[in-house]
Amino acid sequence: MPTIGRSYCGQLSLSHAGESVTLAGWVDALRDHGEVLFIHLRDRSGIVQVVFTPEGTPQAVCDRASVLRSEFCVRVTGRVIQRTGGTENPGIATGDIEVVAEDLAILGSCATLPFQISEKSMLAGGVVRRDETVGEDLRLQYRYLDLRRPTMQDHLIRRHRIVKTIRDFLDQQGFIEVETPMLTKSTPEGARDYLVPSRQFPKSFYALPQSPQLFKQMLMVGGMERYFQIVRCFRDEDLRPNRQPEFTQLDLEASFIDEEYIFDLFEELTVRMFSVGGIDLPRPFPRMTWLDAMNRTGSDRPDLRFGMTFEDATDLFTHTRYGIFRQILDRGGCIKGINVKGASDRLSKNVLQNEYAREIVPGFGAKGMTWMRVMAEGLESNIVQFFSDDERRGILDRFAAQPGDVILMIADPSWSLVCSALGQLRVHLAHRLALIPKDVYAPLWVTDFPLFEAAEDGVTAIHHPFTMPDRVDFDPRNIEDLLALRSRAYDLVMNGEELGGGSIRINDSKLQQRVFQALGLDAGEAAEKFGFFLKALSFGAPPHGGIALGIDRVVAMILGAASIREVIAFPKNRSAYCPLTQAPSPAAPLQLQELGLLDMGGGLPLPGAGEGKDLIDSLSWVSRIGITDPERSSMGEAVAQAQACAERINRNAPSDEPPLFSVAAVSNRTREGRTPRIHPLAASGELFKNAPAEKGGYFKTAAVLD
Amino acid sequence: MPTIGRSYCGQLSLSHAGESVTLAGWVDALRDHGEVLFIHLRDRSGIVQVVFTPEGTPQAVCDRASVLRSEFCVRVTGRVIQRTGGTENPGIATGDIEVVAEDLAILGSCATLPFQISEKSMLAGGVVRRDETVGEDLRLQYRYLDLRRPTMQDHLIRRHRIVKTIRDFLDQQGFIEVETPMLTKSTPEGARDYLVPSRQFPKSFYALPQSPQLFKQMLMVGGMERYFQIVRCFRDEDLRPNRQPEFTQLDLEASFIDEEYIFDLFEELTVRMFSVGGIDLPRPFPRMTWLDAMNRTGSDRPDLRFGMTFEDATDLFTHTRYGIFRQILDRGGCIKGINVKGASDRLSKNVLQNEYAREIVPGFGAKGMTWMRVMAEGLESNIVQFFSDDERRGILDRFAAQPGDVILMIADPSWSLVCSALGQLRVHLAHRLALIPKDVYAPLWVTDFPLFEAAEDGVTAIHHPFTMPDRVDFDPRNIEDLLALRSRAYDLVMNGEELGGGSIRINDSKLQQRVFQALGLDAGEAAEKFGFFLKALSFGAPPHGGIALGIDRVVAMILGAASIREVIAFPKNRSAYCPLTQAPSPAAPLQLQELGLLDMGGGLPLPGAGEGKDLIDSLSWVSRIGITDPERSSMGEAVAQAQACAERINRNAPSDEPPLFSVAAVSNRTREGRTPRIHPLAASGELFKNAPAEKGGYFKTAAVLD
Repeated sequence: MPTIGRSYCGQLSLSHAGESVTLAGWVDALRDHGEVLFIHLRDRSGIVQVVFTPEGTPQAVCDRASVLRSEFCVRVTGRVIQRTGGTENPGIATGDIEVVAEDLAILGSCATLPFQISEKSMLAGGVVRRDETVGEDLRLQYRYLDLRRPTMQDHLIRRHRIVKTIRDFLDQQGFIEVETPMLTKSTPEGARDYLVPSRQFPKSFYALPQSPQLFKQMLMVGGMERYFQIVRCFRDEDLRPNRQPEFTQLDLEASFIDEEYIFDLFEELTVRMFSVGGIDLPRPFPRMTWLDAMNRTGSDRPDLRFGMTFEDATDLFTHTRYGIFRQILDRGGCIKGINVKGASDRLSKNVLQNEYAREIVPGFGAKGMTWMRVMAEGLESNIVQFFSDDERRGILDRFAAQPGDVILMIADPSWSLVCSALGQLRVHLAHRLALIPKDVYAPLWVTDFPLFEAAEDGVTAIHHPFTMPDRVDFDPRNIEDLLALRSRAYDLVMNGEELGGGSIRINDSKLQQRVFQALGLDAGEAAEKFGFFLKALSFGAPPHGGIALGIDRVVAMILGAASIREVIAFPKNRSAYCPLTQAPSPAAPLQLQELGLLDMGGGLPLPGAGEGKDLIDSLSWVSRIGITDPERSSMGEAVAQAQACAERINRNAPSDEPPLFSVAAVSNRTREGRTPRIHPLAASGELFKNAPAEKGGYFKTAAVLD
Repeated sequence: MPTIGRSYCGQLSLSHAGESVTLAGWVDALRDHGEVLFIHLRDRSGIVQVVFTPEGTPQAVCDRASVLRSEFCVRVTGRVIQRTGGTENPGIATGDIEVVAEDLAILGSCATLPFQISEKSMLAGGVVRRDETVGEDLRLQYRYLDLRRPTMQDHLIRRHRIVKTIRDFLDQQGFIEVETPMLTKSTPEGARDYLVPSRQFPKSFYALPQSPQLFKQMLMVGGMERYFQIVRCFRDEDLRPNRQPEFTQLDLEASFIDEEYIFDLFEELTVRMFSVGGIDLPRPFPRMTWLDAMNRTGSDRPDLRFGMTFEDATDLFTHTRYGIFRQILDRGGCIKGINVKGASDRLSKNVLQNEYAREIVPGFGAKGMTWMRVMAEGLESNIVQFFSDDERRGILDRFAAQPGDVILMIADPSWSLVCSALGQLRVHLAHRLALIPKDVYAPLWVTDFPLFEAAEDGVTAIHHPFTMPDRVDFDPRNIEDLLALRSRAYDLVMNGEELGGGSIRINDSKLQQRVFQALGLDAGEAAEKFGFFLKALSFGAPPHGGIALGIDRVVAMILGAASIREVIAFPKNRSAYCPLTQAPSPAAPLQLQELGLLDMGGGLPLPGAGEGKDLIDSLSWVSRIGITDPERSSMGEAVAQAQACAERINRNAPSDEPPLFSVAAVSNRTREGRTPRIHPLAASGELFKNAPAEKGGYFKTAAVLD
């Protein structure tokens, strides 16, 4: 097969006119005009039209071409010519030329397609309509065909380009890519681990990493100074639409640095990644503390592509007569609102009162919503009558309200409920009123998160327990003190999605121990779970910090893909199932046995057999035969004789003997590694023909023996 | 912490003399001269000497420095000065300068070290001797300290550089890096899979990939044309010294190409990789067919750094009177030998006869060895008397023998035994006589392997079943025909090690099916195991081929490391165990239960209960209660009522109810997701106080009920 001289379909142009070329690819589409056959030939680079015509193509080649169907794999040799005027196809990059076929080899024929692959019309101005009924599972089942679609090829190629950009940039910055283990120990990242049974160590398991957190920190202890890795991570979580059981992460850590270093490095990196998608991000990225983000958008990952940030109106109502606000403020609550600029003609009284106040906002967890339409003559609302003139003026002022605006307020004794409900309302209105501009990207650093949040029996870590607090003088037993701590963590947010996050880490063994203590781990538990890591921190650990970025998600955002599955070659579906290979699937019993998985539960003590290792007791339990004390000694002898007999037989058995026969498909526990077959006499029933009753290869005995 | 203005220890030179610098790193070594303290400060870039002296350093800083010990992590500010004449240390790159400390911050103190890290003496001409008693497991347990050693840092940094070289080169060549799944389906690569239990699909398993073989081929079917990936692979094999349960592979595949394309691409890539280690490889790499390799070196991965390739001497003895040769040739055997040039003074009669012929060569599987020392006066040997003059002349001629040479021959009825034993002898002698030159690298392509080898019941694939045969007209039921097939496979061998291998693949569904048939898979089995892949090949699969390279092994070779564990940051030890994190480790019973692992064996059909889904039969079997036909209908009713009752209870149970009580630690099969506790009355024994006998939470009943 000639590899030299192959041209690429999408790279041909008028400048090649008159040249002879050899192309290879797939039949994207065909048009059969009787004597003349047109095909769109597609390879990774694009599409070109090939024509089989009696004038230019040998008859034998035309005959061969007559069997072509969509997605046949072919090699074509031919001559590039300019298309005759009026037959150009501006829908493809090579639309002003075509290739007159002179030779054709069919490299692979194609069965009936489960769905259409072609995305380009053969007719100028023609449109290829996708069959909208092609379900995602069908696409995934035939992923190798789905991947032929130019859209999917473009996704994978640009994903490669983005990841290459990351590697090139970090390499320039002195970062070393170091691979960390996949078969490792469970670390507490908050989700379930995928476990991998060990054959060498029965009943022991590796865990697949949720992230290389502890390894990257140990690389810092190991003096690597600047580490990164593009690494597969695993979380056995219940799946949500945009999640996969395995995902790819950019993981990065550096020593002797602070937050500013990470911000600077990562902004430049993010700018470069997005530029692969033709997106310009302005630097520096804005920053917001977590408290600000909550107070102004009700979210720890604010979408700043649109306005409607919150104003606090609590102080306007300090002396209010309005009963509902009065009660809320008396209970220490707060009132926040947003101004939906110029929306009063799209938000009628009816919509505001009956949809939002009665239905939608209660769905966000708030008891209600106060709405006011700003009219030329003042505020219009069902409750504005209860407000004083000062209060009305205060509202107009606070929200910079102008006629046509709509002001929405939520009041509640709980600050976090006000923030959360108003934040959801903000996003809901942005979608309903189409306030989110297309092709706008709003990056944001969110900083100064709380270190802990309250849990049932104390506190839990918001990021992970290795995050450096803003001060180290806390009392690990004082919950109020702990909840007041801020972490040196940061999230990179884009358009309301968290793209990545990280922190400056604890690099002091004693401080790390106090954080574990705050989290309710006593010294023993901490040593058992994290002993090796606490030890590592005691050997001159440098100050260090890092960040991780979800590659699937960021690539999907840069490419404008509908889901991360559109930028992964072979994703699982929403049930963590692969319709293509049908993984996961049952394993062979022999394989399970080798891994010690068949008696995993049996390895745990059976009720009643767990107290000791007394063989007689176990036999008594398993067989359901009660044994009296006087019987025990003779039983013991009998068991010992049986064992000795089995051993004698084993010793004398030649090792290359064929598998033993059995009456049933069970395995012989005294001779491992053999798979006995059922004896033909048992299989035919001959063996049991005189038994009183028989079932599944066993015969029943009188009750006294059972 | 200031990140700007930090200088790197190893980059300081005389040109910085007089400058003030800030450094950060670890105390590599100390020398305390009373008033003056010298330290070697080490970071990733190298080492510089820092001096704390009353003349140049504030007293408070000197005091602070007095607590410094090896491997403290510090930040130092100071002034670079030229060392005074005679105190230079040529052992370090910065040996002609030092830094007079002006400030010091201790960033992390260090516990007592388990082994020494420093590799550089503070004294000119001094040598640091490593403690040879440091076992590998201790190094792995404290890997974060082991990684601080400049040697290990260099390994990881150059590994990064080599891998970056691969990525840059393949990117330039139009290859796209595509990630394939880690949680996938078992594929038959010849080794055991690591399994990952699925929580969503009980009793089902993902497999970790042994290689992305089928995925890369499906990417070719998907039109990616040029794919590569640097990817983690997994094999649950019994460990050999230079093997890890997980390893990194360069995986590569291309469409519309042939062997020459792969050779050309991969030679250039290999040259570039080795040049990172300062090694020049000449191109083109030599090639040898498998048959030649066996005939000339007795190995399918010949070490060509030294000579002693085989000569065939069979034809010299066609008419021999020497009985042993006579018998062997009568049985269709062969005779091969090597000439150990000029070795007669190092291989005495005694060594040849008593060591090699009697002990070593029989250990290689041959019955014996014929040896001849070439003396000025002719051949000297214990059997040369049986050879005719023609035979003696023939030998001298065939082996181009000169006085001082030693000729060794092995004869056997089995060609493969002759090759294998002589091949081992060749390597043994090369080591014993130190014939292997240092710093020589001998690459080689081995091609034209047999496609199949004989197995107990037919044939098995030598590479894997997706390899293209050299001809397609074979009869899948004719074993002789199958064994005569050659494969379009190739291995890249360097210095006797296989670095990588690959093949042109089958791209025709029917041919693939015939190969499966040859391997003894009937159509049903083939469809069950590889149905999705056979289907993929039926949709216009392009001709394609590829190669894979073991990254750990090639990096170890380029860096001259003693084992692959020296070029992996966190390897497992030889038992697939991680002394650092102590993985694998037992899992929590709750986790095992969630994964359905506790009753894995129980889930397989019990003998006698597997035939059907008849609930009554199952109950009868499990309870050991025989049921007569007339009883069946009333039993059915009772079971249905019990089910309905359980469903009613479930419907009425509030979902936030605490777990139910049970008398024993069993799980409730009608209400999943609850973990019942043993009722206190059962735990205390109160519940069973009137039972005739009780054990482990159960009480015994009369035999009639049992």
